[in-house]
Amino acid sequence: MSKIRVAIAGYGNLGKGVELALRQNDDMEFVGVFSRRDPASVKLATAGVPVWPLADAAQYKDQVDVLIICGGSATDLPEQTPALAKDFNVIDSFDTHARIPEHFANVDAAAKASGHLAMISLGWDPGLFSLNRVYAESILRDGATYTFWGKGVSQGHSDAIRRVKGVKRGIQYTCPVESAIEAVRSGSQPELTTRDKHERVCYVVAEEGADKAQIEQDIKTMKNYFDEYNTTVNFISEEEFDREHNTLPHGGFVIRSGKTGADLSTNQTIEYSLKLGSNPEFTASVLVAYARALSRLKAEGATGCKTAFDVAPGYLSPLSPEELRAHCL
Amino acid sequence: MSKIRVAIAGYGNLGKGVELALRQNDDMEFVGVFSRRDPASVKLATAGVPVWPLADAAQYKDQVDVLIICGGSATDLPEQTPALAKDFNVIDSFDTHARIPEHFANVDAAAKASGHLAMISLGWDPGLFSLNRVYAESILRDGATYTFWGKGVSQGHSDAIRRVKGVKRGIQYTCPVESAIEAVRSGSQPELTTRDKHERVCYVVAEEGADKAQIEQDIKTMKNYFDEYNTTVNFISEEEFDREHNTLPHGGFVIRSGKTGADLSTNQTIEYSLKLGSNPEFTASVLVAYARALSRLKAEGATGCKTAFDVAPGYLSPLSPEELRAHCL
Repeated sequence: MSKIRVAIAGYGNLGKGVELALRQNDDMEFVGVFSRRDPASVKLATAGVPVWPLADAAQYKDQVDVLIICGGSATDLPEQTPALAKDFNVIDSFDTHARIPEHFANVDAAAKASGHLAMISLGWDPGLFSLNRVYAESILRDGATYTFWGKGVSQGHSDAIRRVKGVKRGIQYTCPVESAIEAVRSGSQPELTTRDKHERVCYVVAEEGADKAQIEQDIKTMKNYFDEYNTTVNFISEEEFDREHNTLPHGGFVIRSGKTGADLSTNQTIEYSLKLGSNPEFTASVLVAYARALSRLKAEGATGCKTAFDVAPGYLSPLSPEELRAHCL
Repeated sequence: MSKIRVAIAGYGNLGKGVELALRQNDDMEFVGVFSRRDPASVKLATAGVPVWPLADAAQYKDQVDVLIICGGSATDLPEQTPALAKDFNVIDSFDTHARIPEHFANVDAAAKASGHLAMISLGWDPGLFSLNRVYAESILRDGATYTFWGKGVSQGHSDAIRRVKGVKRGIQYTCPVESAIEAVRSGSQPELTTRDKHERVCYVVAEEGADKAQIEQDIKTMKNYFDEYNTTVNFISEEEFDREHNTLPHGGFVIRSGKTGADLSTNQTIEYSLKLGSNPEFTASVLVAYARALSRLKAEGATGCKTAFDVAPGYLSPLSPEELRAHCL
């Protein structure tokens, strides 16, 4: 059987993760990277794979079965995914929840018009967390669903810290509140505020002579980012920062606390959790599994846009339906 | 929109659970029970719903959109599911893992010949645990998957205890070994024996004058049931037995411990767990959600046999694809 030829658009943390994940899937072939940068300046981890100018992508469409687009959700993906769906079967990790219906409509129209297949908003949230919410809520009809994130690095909050006067280096960890998780697991279906569910822990390297008390106050009172949370600011040395805060862990929990029975008095709890050593490497692994699903669904004639809700689990596996039934059911 | 008309074949613990689960789904209508017993002797929890003789099932086929078959896997389902698939769209919870390929083939042939749609081996294991194994192994290609069951009542082991001489009442709980779960969560990918993963805890009411030491030894040395496990036997009064051991809790964990990255040194852990106050009520809730999926897939023209691997998550939800994308993704 011929391999699935996969290319990557955008070679940042996520694109690099896709490159590595492809090595773990021997039914896939990594065929190239599209970049907005000067191709000569982009050094891949893999020898012998070409870097092409993103602007010329259409020229290479016959060499690519699935294009995994690894841009950002704020400005890249809303433009890139519909545009590239004219020439490629595409996958993205668009994660601006409120704008998903609009993004879906744009990508669906482009992919249907060109006869391609697209899958959007894949990763873990949106993605695996979303489908766990749907499974759990479809099964336990009466109940409450809780999503907790962390412990993990929030890029947006880390960027916000770094904009504070006097901050040289900064990173922010979103941490679920353990007592809130325990309350949810108990089946009591608590009402939880934003402050109840998560706390924010910051590590900051201050510039020499900076006013640390002021930095701490500026962070803790920052609107939309920190003011609704219990926030801790830790000042550390640059050496410690480089040693202890050089990875991008993340994770989280989706918990459905439901009730069944004649008087709805039986507690039933479904919990899904992730503990990720590297957020971009894990997200990349999800995208690559869906590249396999896309390739199969396309071979069956599917076009337009799909999400994780539309893809049967068996399509993600390299095993055949017979093997899955015999070994995994 | 007209409701999905659901009937139940077999009115034991699982069938009763399906009856209750149907009340939690307002797009479903509970239309009847098929029983091998004298219909007059079967008292439903729901007033005004008929009980029909299982032998006459075909007479009622036009009144039923989906038939949920709630028999046992040892002898009932291998006969009933293919036979009833001649006249009905059927769902079962066949759970003899080793015989699933054979059961699938029989049901698939019957359903295809009659133009019906069947779904087999639904519930939580096989079922939700199976699809979590497939998702996790498809995403984290390098790693190890661990399934733990419990704490929960094993009917088979409870039956085995009750066959021991001198035992008046008996129940057995399968308990995962907490230290083994912690070792798996650590990412160390331990090799675990049967004894390492689970222990068996029994509660026994002895007959008057029975030799308790002998009962304990007979249980602990029982081949295939207890000899490969660390087993504890607790003797209690009949009063305590009736008070403390009158429910059927269960649950378990599927944990995928995987590695990603250039040198496969990044730990990534996916964990799915269930904590069920009532095993039959939960299994019933899964079957009812798949009844919705079956009804939709049948409307699209599907026939033959499917498993959880073949059903996209969105089909289980009462929400439309647009609603799912807007609210759950």
